[in-house]
Amino acid sequence: MTVWISRRPDADVAAELKASRGPLTGVRLAVKDNVDVAGLPTTAACPEVAYRPQRDASAVAALRAAGAVVVGKTNLDQFATGLVGTRSPYGAVSDIGTDTAGSGRVPAGLQGIVGIKPTLGVVSTDGVVPACESYDCVTIFAPNLELANRAMGVMAAGATDRTWPCDVRLAAPPNPVVAVPNELPELDREWRSAFDAAVGKLTDAGARVVTVDITPFLAAAKLLYDGALVSERYAAVGEFIDAHPDAAIDPTVRRIISAARDIPAHRLLRDRREVNRLRAVAMMALDGVDALVVPTAPMHPRIDEVAADPVGVNSRMGIYTNFCNLFDLCAVAVPAGTAGQAQFGITVLARAFEDAVAMDIAALASEDEAPVDVWPLAVVESVELVVFGAHLRGGPLAHQLTDQGARWAGEVTTAPRYRMSVLPTVPAKPAITRVPDGAQGTELNGHRWVLSPAALGRFLAALPAPMQLGKVEFDDGTWRTAFGCDAAAATGADISVYGSWPAAIEAGAVG
Amino acid sequence: MTVWISRRPDADVAAELKASRGPLTGVRLAVKDNVDVAGLPTTAACPEVAYRPQRDASAVAALRAAGAVVVGKTNLDQFATGLVGTRSPYGAVSDIGTDTAGSGRVPAGLQGIVGIKPTLGVVSTDGVVPACESYDCVTIFAPNLELANRAMGVMAAGATDRTWPCDVRLAAPPNPVVAVPNELPELDREWRSAFDAAVGKLTDAGARVVTVDITPFLAAAKLLYDGALVSERYAAVGEFIDAHPDAAIDPTVRRIISAARDIPAHRLLRDRREVNRLRAVAMMALDGVDALVVPTAPMHPRIDEVAADPVGVNSRMGIYTNFCNLFDLCAVAVPAGTAGQAQFGITVLARAFEDAVAMDIAALASEDEAPVDVWPLAVVESVELVVFGAHLRGGPLAHQLTDQGARWAGEVTTAPRYRMSVLPTVPAKPAITRVPDGAQGTELNGHRWVLSPAALGRFLAALPAPMQLGKVEFDDGTWRTAFGCDAAAATGADISVYGSWPAAIEAGAVG
Repeated sequence: MTVWISRRPDADVAAELKASRGPLTGVRLAVKDNVDVAGLPTTAACPEVAYRPQRDASAVAALRAAGAVVVGKTNLDQFATGLVGTRSPYGAVSDIGTDTAGSGRVPAGLQGIVGIKPTLGVVSTDGVVPACESYDCVTIFAPNLELANRAMGVMAAGATDRTWPCDVRLAAPPNPVVAVPNELPELDREWRSAFDAAVGKLTDAGARVVTVDITPFLAAAKLLYDGALVSERYAAVGEFIDAHPDAAIDPTVRRIISAARDIPAHRLLRDRREVNRLRAVAMMALDGVDALVVPTAPMHPRIDEVAADPVGVNSRMGIYTNFCNLFDLCAVAVPAGTAGQAQFGITVLARAFEDAVAMDIAALASEDEAPVDVWPLAVVESVELVVFGAHLRGGPLAHQLTDQGARWAGEVTTAPRYRMSVLPTVPAKPAITRVPDGAQGTELNGHRWVLSPAALGRFLAALPAPMQLGKVEFDDGTWRTAFGCDAAAATGADISVYGSWPAAIEAGAVG
Repeated sequence: MTVWISRRPDADVAAELKASRGPLTGVRLAVKDNVDVAGLPTTAACPEVAYRPQRDASAVAALRAAGAVVVGKTNLDQFATGLVGTRSPYGAVSDIGTDTAGSGRVPAGLQGIVGIKPTLGVVSTDGVVPACESYDCVTIFAPNLELANRAMGVMAAGATDRTWPCDVRLAAPPNPVVAVPNELPELDREWRSAFDAAVGKLTDAGARVVTVDITPFLAAAKLLYDGALVSERYAAVGEFIDAHPDAAIDPTVRRIISAARDIPAHRLLRDRREVNRLRAVAMMALDGVDALVVPTAPMHPRIDEVAADPVGVNSRMGIYTNFCNLFDLCAVAVPAGTAGQAQFGITVLARAFEDAVAMDIAALASEDEAPVDVWPLAVVESVELVVFGAHLRGGPLAHQLTDQGARWAGEVTTAPRYRMSVLPTVPAKPAITRVPDGAQGTELNGHRWVLSPAALGRFLAALPAPMQLGKVEFDDGTWRTAFGCDAAAATGADISVYGSWPAAIEAGAVG
């Protein structure tokens, strides 16, 4: 199988790399050949449908504007019906993929790289050849979580088809609840051991692991292949295939798609209702769970095994990926060691829009750090809150923020215009008040959280007296939303000299 | 045409009315006979499908629990394919309806009553015979806006199929932008005059009226009847109809539904894509518009006119209602005088979940007051904010709240523990600070707003120093989220004696 369907001249690529500027400077980009790149033909691996697009797909345009340089277009199963491997002789490489049933994850698992399949619709499919329109998703492959995260942020900021909710969680909680399947069909002993090791690593990192009945997930996967949903593929390319009996269409692809022509609409409606029913069952099973973790693929078949049973092997390969888009989940596939000679990978699945939660838990399970600037922050409306006392990371009330998906964003220091005193509350809290103009104040250390607007509104609505929220001046001249206090209540001991609440506690100056 | 398909015995109704308790005490309820009432048969006007449900539909259960008493089940076009009149010999009556193409609005327009068709899915369709499942909606009819609002609040609080967004607008802005169609097909001169008069009333009430191209709305309406969407009706009852060739099925209904059996799925997908495309065009045309106002029906045909051209008259009757659920809009139909001898009504349409906006604008256009407790408040997560200065209703910064859909909720008075001073800001603002324990404070008047959590979070994030938000104590002993101030900035003249910011301005005590 050819890796490249079209390549740009090396000299062009080298020249663009030299001139490239932006957050993705120096990143080479391979683009699956069902996604438009201006000037290169889009074939979807079917020469008869090839066209030469005038402009990049939105996702490609965003990555190029950020400095990434397109190397060429990669091969794929015709009309994006299968899996594509990804390898490169170059250094840092991102690869735009698409994922309806698992093509943005399975190859990552088999190759020991990272694949991010974001929530459906948060990256525009403008400029992508439709395969199964309701469930098509633009994805990214990259050698590590950091680069994949950076590329996703750029791509998602480019254009979206769907609005993010204004109470979206921007981080996993400190001790996430992770579900694993109660059974692991299709995995042999070595692959099971590899999965157990990956789950053990999550536990070691602080996750609480529970089991979930995998039945409704697998039942939905069957509907993707065996039911009426395949009529979406006919809607995409069926009329072309029927009108071109002599076109070079793969016989299996032609058979599957042409057979979908006569599926009646009421059967599609029935199957979609069944998907929704299974989804409701699955979501109930995941109540209280932050993410589901599964093997990305159950095995790594040889080419002769695929040839001997193409449909069966393909179905088995997708057992842990097929349900994802049907259930409107997002997913991050990360390497997790080896199973015998094969690369092994796991996939972290979270609810729609909880992409940041999936990223954090994927990082827990992998060798990579969770990115501070997790990619949804590049596109989601977020606000900030600076805290000084019980809401510091690790503090007794920090859960009021982390339960709502607030993301810790580092330490900050106020301008030397404040004082800190002790409030007689339970738990003890500091009162931060600004000193009058001309008076001597202190620089105080705090923590910055980013959170959704709704999370901030709920937090304020639940905040008891005498705490207040408003703008505080910081040492870099910024004014940020932060904790203040009703001055009438700030009558306790002045502990400004300690510079931070933890230091005051450490010194025994609090209560 | 019979009004009632089944009636409960008068004695039972009278006994329940006597015992009824709750917000709907004394309200008689008629239920369209495609909605389950425990103990009465559900027929959908087809005796062969009749069943006797064990329990009420969610919407019915909620209304009964609130004190409403079911009188009986009303007639309908078979399988809810047409319009139902509503009349009653009783006093206050609510009538549960359903609305796919307009059946929750057209009868209200023709009878001079109020019909509320809420956003799809915010009232559960559990216990309702499906007609066209993706677009079926439970509705309420009532003689006036106040009772319709009260019943909707109860019904929506009962059970929902869809989550409200956390930044939903809870009120129309003080001077809403209202779109009217650039053309009014099917209206004769008298009906046009009645519509113009209704629009004039909106203008007099402060609305800004703009025109919008009605073409994409009418194009979508055609798809509902002439396209593949009718396959949803086959999915609902088609197999029953085909299996019972001798059942008493209305010949037109049988013809429409049976013909939908062989519509291929890819045609349904194509039509849905077209609906989405038209919706995008329509929504772009409504950018910056708070509501679209249309005649509820274009005419009131006589029965002999319907008999002469059943399909044509039916299509024309739905011209201003059919697009609503396809475009995921909510609607409130209110009486608006007469057109010749006929009742005339208009419908206010707003975006999904902007039901409160539609209610407010409907009230502007009608004889009724906008309800303070508009029904979405009964189900939507909301928070509150008490303001004392520039954000009072009518104040120079009130738009910061009303632009985000905050709803004015009355005047409130603090406990006598506060002082008010003047801040040297532009515009001038009051600083509200709590006096120290033991010191003499003042009762201060403010305004209470209710708003979404996201609106409060955004408001806080944009709030400049020295303003702060936190809990303030009120004269009824409650502590509510309200404006405070950084005490270091509250150094201006004490104006507590005036009791409120407007009184201080009136007295010339501010700047």
